[in-house]
Amino acid sequence: MRQNIYDNPEFFEYYQRLRSTGITYNDFVEQPALMAMLPELQGKNVLDLGCGAGQLAAYMVSQGAAHVTGADISAKMLNQAPEHPQVRYIHGPMEELDFAPASFDLIVSSLAFHYVENYDALMNQIAGWLRPGGHLVFSTEHPVTTAKLDMDGWIEDHEGKRLYYALDNYAEEGIRHTHWVVDNVIKYHRTLSTLLNGMIRYGLQIEQVNEPEPIPGAIEKMPTLVNEWRKPSFIIFKAVKRGG
Amino acid sequence: MRQNIYDNPEFFEYYQRLRSTGITYNDFVEQPALMAMLPELQGKNVLDLGCGAGQLAAYMVSQGAAHVTGADISAKMLNQAPEHPQVRYIHGPMEELDFAPASFDLIVSSLAFHYVENYDALMNQIAGWLRPGGHLVFSTEHPVTTAKLDMDGWIEDHEGKRLYYALDNYAEEGIRHTHWVVDNVIKYHRTLSTLLNGMIRYGLQIEQVNEPEPIPGAIEKMPTLVNEWRKPSFIIFKAVKRGG
Repeated sequence: MRQNIYDNPEFFEYYQRLRSTGITYNDFVEQPALMAMLPELQGKNVLDLGCGAGQLAAYMVSQGAAHVTGADISAKMLNQAPEHPQVRYIHGPMEELDFAPASFDLIVSSLAFHYVENYDALMNQIAGWLRPGGHLVFSTEHPVTTAKLDMDGWIEDHEGKRLYYALDNYAEEGIRHTHWVVDNVIKYHRTLSTLLNGMIRYGLQIEQVNEPEPIPGAIEKMPTLVNEWRKPSFIIFKAVKRGG
Repeated sequence: MRQNIYDNPEFFEYYQRLRSTGITYNDFVEQPALMAMLPELQGKNVLDLGCGAGQLAAYMVSQGAAHVTGADISAKMLNQAPEHPQVRYIHGPMEELDFAPASFDLIVSSLAFHYVENYDALMNQIAGWLRPGGHLVFSTEHPVTTAKLDMDGWIEDHEGKRLYYALDNYAEEGIRHTHWVVDNVIKYHRTLSTLLNGMIRYGLQIEQVNEPEPIPGAIEKMPTLVNEWRKPSFIIFKAVKRGG
């Protein structure tokens, strides 16, 4: 059984409340950077893996995408997604999707791949689903964030001041059990080499790498973002399928 | 004046003694991994940036390289290098070298680029010196190792046991003043994105990334190597000049 944490009622309620504030790492760090890395969207056929409530799908349609297929494991998240004639939603784990070869011009994924156990198989699938010259753009938790076995890295002094981020267990890839709202949220740690070589292996040529910093003005609304300069939370990759 | 730490007598003497033991991070982690990432050497014209005493140059000739040009800023290191009809040594900082466009089939560098201030200019030079289809293979200190301003990351308990590695200042690129044998050894910290995007920008397409682990049997001779699984010291890149 694949983890479906977003359908956990307690987690879901918290997450909905958090995102509705507009004051999140997604709003101020990850989404702006991911959007800026998207290729030209006009007329494109797009697959969004881990689409959640469809915010990114709606954005891409507004930017000219002809059609977006959004897939998510969470029924609760998909239930929040507004209907749109150019967006089709699929309920299910991304590892079990099935598309014809070369179906998409662009495959995007926002902070979902760290929930997937078999990254190599996922890259193999994605490379097959992309047409030659098509792009993959995805964000994931940064390896320095997922490395330590408990993923609890900030070390504080007795007054709660963050001294530094504890890095450990970097080469020990695999499952991480963390607490995020609820106990035992499962994520998978992979090294940077694994993330990059996994794309290259299947003909996905690296075009850009981004360890995003907060957007201007964000610090005032969310002071903890100052720590993003000390230790990055996310990393975003843009790759192109060779042969285009 | 560019830093020339290897010509500091105290540093040089220590470094010579260290390397002569054969029990170093170079022997057990970095060199084996770098060598394994080299392309076919038969008949190749190679440039070795920061060649030191010429060990890697000699190895490449033994593997069939037609000619190796070794450049190093340190006269003391070059004085140690054995003469060889297929190896030419140049004394000078790599930033000031001048070669015709497309002069080399392969450019290698072992643990030298973190001493260079302007990485972007270096990548621009290297891309010009490589023929289309030629390779760049280089190792450098890992960004998680160079990030913290004092580069002194291992946090120990009162018995000297290493608890974790302190990561900080990751996005603050630039100069680092560290103590390594002597005071004020200067290195330059760059993020992973900068290292990768700097190659891509000049048409150097990433082929492989390696965060090397110790070779089998090394731990017995050098027990501290166990920490390489906790926090990588090095990262090695292999890229190919496009258009080949």
